[in-house]
Parts: sequence; C-alpha cells; structure tokens
Amino acid sequence: MRELIERLLEGVPAACVLTDPDVTASYARDQAAFADAGAPAVVVLPRTVEQVRHVMRTATALRVPVVPQGARTGLSGAANATDGCIVLSLARMDRILEIDPVDRVAVVEPGVVNAALTRAAAGHGLTYPPDPSSWEECTIGGNIGTGAGGLCCVKYGVTAEYVLGLDVVLADGRLLSTGRRTAKGVAGYDLTRLFVGSEGTLGIVVKAVVALRPAPPPQLALVAEFPSTTAAAAAVCAVMERGHAPSLLELMDGTTVRAVNDLARMGLPESTEALLLAAFDTADPAADLAAVAALCTAAGATEVVPAADAAESELLLQARRLSLPALERLAPSLLIDDVCVPRARLGDMLDGVVAIAEKYGLTIGVCAHAGDGNTHPVVCFDPRDAGQTRRARESFDAIMALGLELGGTITGEHGVGRLKREWLARELGETGVEVQRGIKAVLDPLGLLNPGTLF
Amino acid sequence: MRELIERLLEGVPAACVLTDPDVTASYARDQAAFADAGAPAVVVLPRTVEQVRHVMRTATALRVPVVPQGARTGLSGAANATDGCIVLSLARMDRILEIDPVDRVAVVEPGVVNAALTRAAAGHGLTYPPDPSSWEECTIGGNIGTGAGGLCCVKYGVTAEYVLGLDVVLADGRLLSTGRRTAKGVAGYDLTRLFVGSEGTLGIVVKAVVALRPAPPPQLALVAEFPSTTAAAAAVCAVMERGHAPSLLELMDGTTVRAVNDLARMGLPESTEALLLAAFDTADPAADLAAVAALCTAAGATEVVPAADAAESELLLQARRLSLPALERLAPSLLIDDVCVPRARLGDMLDGVVAIAEKYGLTIGVCAHAGDGNTHPVVCFDPRDAGQTRRARESFDAIMALGLELGGTITGEHGVGRLKREWLARELGETGVEVQRGIKAVLDPLGLLNPGTLF
Repeated sequence: MRELIERLLEGVPAACVLTDPDVTASYARDQAAFADAGAPAVVVLPRTVEQVRHVMRTATALRVPVVPQGARTGLSGAANATDGCIVLSLARMDRILEIDPVDRVAVVEPGVVNAALTRAAAGHGLTYPPDPSSWEECTIGGNIGTGAGGLCCVKYGVTAEYVLGLDVVLADGRLLSTGRRTAKGVAGYDLTRLFVGSEGTLGIVVKAVVALRPAPPPQLALVAEFPSTTAAAAAVCAVMERGHAPSLLELMDGTTVRAVNDLARMGLPESTEALLLAAFDTADPAADLAAVAALCTAAGATEVVPAADAAESELLLQARRLSLPALERLAPSLLIDDVCVPRARLGDMLDGVVAIAEKYGLTIGVCAHAGDGNTHPVVCFDPRDAGQTRRARESFDAIMALGLELGGTITGEHGVGRLKREWLARELGETGVEVQRGIKAVLDPLGLLNPGTLF
Repeated sequence: MRELIERLLEGVPAACVLTDPDVTASYARDQAAFADAGAPAVVVLPRTVEQVRHVMRTATALRVPVVPQGARTGLSGAANATDGCIVLSLARMDRILEIDPVDRVAVVEPGVVNAALTRAAAGHGLTYPPDPSSWEECTIGGNIGTGAGGLCCVKYGVTAEYVLGLDVVLADGRLLSTGRRTAKGVAGYDLTRLFVGSEGTLGIVVKAVVALRPAPPPQLALVAEFPSTTAAAAAVCAVMERGHAPSLLELMDGTTVRAVNDLARMGLPESTEALLLAAFDTADPAADLAAVAALCTAAGATEVVPAADAAESELLLQARRLSLPALERLAPSLLIDDVCVPRARLGDMLDGVVAIAEKYGLTIGVCAHAGDGNTHPVVCFDPRDAGQTRRARESFDAIMALGLELGGTITGEHGVGRLKREWLARELGETGVEVQRGIKAVLDPLGLLNPGTLF
C-alpha cells in the first residue's frame, strides 16, 4: 500500500492522489442497487494522458487492479471499486479540445460532461445527440464506457454511432490510437467500437473524436392516453411500420403515470394504463404529429393531446423525465432493468412485466424508450425487508429472462457491469464468452482492468 | 490434395466442390490491379451453414488456408486466392430470410446481392442505404467484409452502421452469434463491428441482421461547374459547415469530366476543372438545392444547373457513374486509390494529387465522395510498360502518404486487402498492429483465414 502510493506520486501530483479512507470510500460505487463494491486503496484524479500512463504502468508493475470512473451515474455497478484497487477517476480531464464545424467533429477529454459538450456544440449550430437521463452529470468517457443511449436514440442512434476515434491507455501503459477523424475509414479492425461499451475492462479512454450533427429544429410533441399497454405498444408498432421518424417515442405505464401525478400534480388522467409521448423535429412536425395521432386513435387511444409549441412540448416531456424521481417515492430502493426487445414484442414484454410484478408481489413501474423496444422496468422495494429484497432480485432476473425469451437483450443501454455478469454469459452463449474472454486477455493479460465487470 | 477433396466431400455435395484447374483459376482474384494472387486447390460453394462449418473443420484439421469470397468486385485484393487454398465462395447462400417492417430489419444470407436486398426492401417502403458502385453485383457478405460505402454515405453512413447482428463460422468450425436484432444493445464487447471490415480474416459470416430505413423521397440534384478543384472543395466545406444534409455530394475533376464527355457525349463543359454534384431527398429539395447553389456561386462556380425533376437528376448522376468506365478508356489498366481525409483538407488532397500526377508523368483522374472527404484518385497506366507500371505503383503510394499526412486514412471504403497491407502498418502504428494481430490470433490461432490480407 505504501509502495503503491509512493510509486504513484512519482508521476502524479499529490493533489491528484486521494488516500483518506473517508474520501476514497465515497468513490466506491455508482448508482446500481445490489452490485457489490469494495474499498479502494487510493483514488487518482489525473489531469494528463502522461499521468494516466504512469498510473497504468504502476498498476501493472505492482499488479494492482484499476477501476476507471466517470461521474458514477451508471446503473450496473461497472464503476464499483474492488478491495485494494486504484480508482482512476477521469473527471478532471474535462477539456473540450476542439469543435470543428466543417468536419462536424469534437475532440474531447473523457471527463467532459455530456451536457457541456452539447452546449458547446450548440454554439456552432451543431449537436451531440446521445442524451442519457443523467446528461447534466455523466461524462463522455462514461458514455463511451457504457455505450450510453437516451431519449433521442429512436431517431439518432446511440453513443457508438458517434465515436469516430479514441486514444486509449492500455493496461501496461502503452498508448493506442484507434479510428479516425474522417467521415469514413476501414483501415484494419474496428477497435474504436470494441472499446465503446467495454465498461473500462480493455483500456482507459483518454481522448475521443466524436461526430456532431447539425442541430435539428425544436421538437413538437404529443401525448396519447391508452386504456392498456397492449394498445400503446400496437400504436408504437404502427408508427414505426408506417415509416415515421419520431425524435422520441416514449412510454410510461399506469404505475409510473400515477407516481408522476402524485409527485408533480401534472393532472395526468389517473385511469390511464399507458401514456405515449411522441415528438418530431422534422420540417413539418405538426403534420407528422397529426399522422401519429390518427394511428394512436386507431390503436385505441382514449385521448390525444398535441402540444401547441416547443415550450408546451417541453412541459409534456417533463412528465417523462420525472418518472424515476416519482417512482423513487414509492419505495426506499429501486432496481432498474434495461431489457430491449424487438419492437414487435414490446406488448408481450409489458404484459410479462405485469405478470412478474403480480407473481412476486412487488410494484414494478415501467418507462420505456418504446420506439426502440427498450424498456426500463423499475422494481420498487425496501432493502430493510429481506423477503422483499430477495423477491426484488428474483423479479429483476425474471425480467431479463423474459427479454431473452422474446429475442431481446439484457441491456439496451445501461451495460452489464457487476450486476448482470451471470446474465451476460446466458445471452452470449459459451462460444461468445470464450471469444470475448480471449479478446480481454489480449488487451489486459493480467486481468487488472475493472475485474468483476462483464465476466 | 486428394485427402482435402475427400474430406470436403464428406460434408459438402459434389456439385458444390469445384476442382477443374481452369474453373478454379477463374476464382483466383478480385478487381484489384497489382495485388498478388495464387492458385486455389479447390473452390467450395456451400449452400448451408452446416456445410460452411464442415469446410472450416476440414481446413483446420488439414491446416489448409481458406479465402472467403463474395462477388469478387473488391478493389484491394482481399478476395485473392493463395496457392493451395480453399476458396470459400458464399455466392450461393443468397436467400433473404426475412424482412420485418416493424423492426425495420432484414435477415439475409451472405450471398444476397446488394441490389436484390434494396429491391426487396422497397416492397415494404424501406431501403438498405449502403450503395457501393458495384451494387448490382456485390454481395452483403462482401459489403460486410470490406465495410463498403457508396454515394449515399454522406447522409446515411456506411455498411457498419447497418449491421446489427451476425452469425459467424469461426476458423475451427464453431458457430458464433454476435449482436442482436433489437434497435439497441450493449451486452458485452461489440463483436459485430469487429467482423465488419475484417476482410474475411476473423471468420465466415453466414447470416446477418441488417437495419433498414424508411425509403426517402426521390432525390433532386444539381450540377455546379468550377474553374478549380480548390473552389469546388471550398464549396463542399461551405455546404457542410452550413448544416446541410445532402443525400450525395460528389466531385469529378477535369480529367474525369473530359473522359466522361469523350465516352458519352454528355455535353459537359470541357473547360471545367471540377464538377460538383449535390442532391437532396428532403421534404423540400428545391429549397435546399437553391441554398447550395448560392454557396457554390459564392465559392466561384461558373455555372450551376439544377435538375427540374427526379428523372433529370438521374441523368446528372449518370455522369458520375460513368467516371470509371470513362477513365478505363484512357489506359489499359487503372489503380484506384481510396484515401479519405478530413473534409476541410479536401482541397489540399486534390492539389496534392495534381502534383503527384505531374511528378510521375501519369494521368490521374479523381472522382470523390466529396462530402465525406473520400477521394478516389485513379492512376491510369499501361502494365506492358515497366517504367510506367513502377511509376503507377509509386504514385499510388504517394497518394496514400499524402492522405496520412493530411490526417486521413489510406482507405475510406475499399479496404486494405493484399494491396495496402504495408500501409496499414504505417497508419496503425506499432501498438495498433500488435493489438490487431493479438485479436486475429484469438479468432484464428492457426492463421488459416485469408492469410496475406491486412497483415
């Protein structure tokens, strides 16, 4: 331990090395309930690539595990410390190095906050689309690590689609550049994409070239109320089948709607069993919304309310954004699932979650990026009640099993982390796990990078 | 050799196994000039996944190299045989297994021709955007192998963006499933993207889930004539900087324009030094074209001609499509480069190619996916002239060196193959090559898959 600190201080200023146990303990975990976490030996907050390389060289020399962290807003425990590890927080490497409106790229350090990049891009008439709910806090490095999504993905895709090139410090301290800053490029294997979503298990991202897009017009939204989730899911399928390109298409089930109502007194109808929010940022959003409204009505919507303008649209979306805070008031703890199913199976997924909630005697609210088939069933439980806690974990697992059964994945955007590693093996199968472990061994032969995450 | 054939026939029907040397020789190479090619021992054309697995098990047992092939329209020698290899042609695995308009995906076998998929998707109001010039011949498997691009990429991206999941037969015959058919998914490392662009060196793709998009409206085009490539490149940068989203933005230099004129008597102005083609498939393409026309004029265009309708637009694009056939008339052989540079460096790239053509005393015509910064300098030479042939190869290399110097890549969409493997090492650097070789070794420890390609 003393040797570790001494060696670290040879290449990293003392102000960047935290050893007070009270302080280091505060870096022990992200936002995932149930994921195990240990006590870090030290927290290092480097400011330069060279400092990161020094940390990794030291870790390799002394065989100390390293857990990289962004803003610790993750929901799968991928940023959780292991006992005696170095927590390597990239939060202070937070400079936007360049925004180029001709190439439509930004070059950023990993600690740049998602919203900070979006705002900086807006100054050039551009935007960085991926918008996880934690966008005011989460970092681009963390987004890359988890392959983060958000509300806009149904039209604009996920983080992976926007990462063009990376600088990565490998486990032994070597610096690897991947990808490009050009619009296209196919020189060799796509290592950039290999690092996106690798949850800090293959290397430390220290710089990223990300693609920006022209900022779209403000979006116009509608809200549609349905008497059942089945009807709402049918509307989602109809919208997508007709070739519409909504900029968001979100669903809240009755439990979530009532919780939001209780929290914010938004006057949402208590009898609604599913609320659908659709928005368009097209040239004529009102026309697109009218077409979607007709499809909602045909699918059984009891009421469809289009927003008059962008400000009113923002108000409608507020309800969706309050889903988690509202559900948080129903129980002391939440376990948030992230199953993504083929869009056509969304109705089956939502029905299945109701059955699971009944079987385990728990409240499970669902909000979903419905246009992507990406559901977030939120299991509400009291961790002080052992039986309830066990049932929460079992229902969480049952939801993933259902997702796989319906041809889906255990994680659409939150990642595997420490929370779902057994389930990853189920999804990938034996050959898949073998190949993935083989690739891990090439990049991290000593197994020092984020051990216990993914595998 | 006899043992190889006997073992192959234990799991593959005789009609799928070709051994006549005249026939097998016709499978020896793709469309790349200069790339070396050997004589295959046998050509196998399997129809089922199980047959592919049998071929790979046999190859592994007998340590015989395997070269996978699609339509052999590639331009980098990645489908070229090595002496004594098994050529594994996927051309007969050509079924479209499913098109799902709700999930907006197609499930296809690797031998499906790109245009066949596009046409099948059109029947559902959908499209498969990647559109390499060889789209009437090339296969989806080949497109995945090379990470193919096309004209539409400036708006719709490349093949990699559309591949969601793969079934891959590994070198030892194991079957690996990667990715998903859902809109999102981040379970484990992105092996799907690892295989896209891997040029048959990591495994044999036997099934793919690809994303489809709603078919856009017909595009409307304009053509703008410039007195210099510098002016045309400036117009390209202005168009992209202003946030326009053209569905194509192509450039032809004076050499190419004059060659097309000679071939097709299209009445293009002989004095033009650069022709820019822009198209929009937006809600109001005429308005977008008017804005682009103004930017072209401001950048120095001497004439801007908008098409009146979709049919006239198609006619304008015809000139671009004739570029290669036209340049083919200038010399017995062509060497087609594929350098992609940051958009802002396009003008420097085009100037540099002129200087290289002068230095080596050769005709080099350039057509470019200008909106992506992806240039195709086409070196015209006579292979019967040893001096000219040497200079052609040297100029081809000089163009790649210039691309790297300008912050670009040696290949935007054609791949590395056997033609550019030395240049791949230059682009990736030592650490990059070591990591890529390590990954290759995990998936193909005996080095049987397409040896001599990439590395």
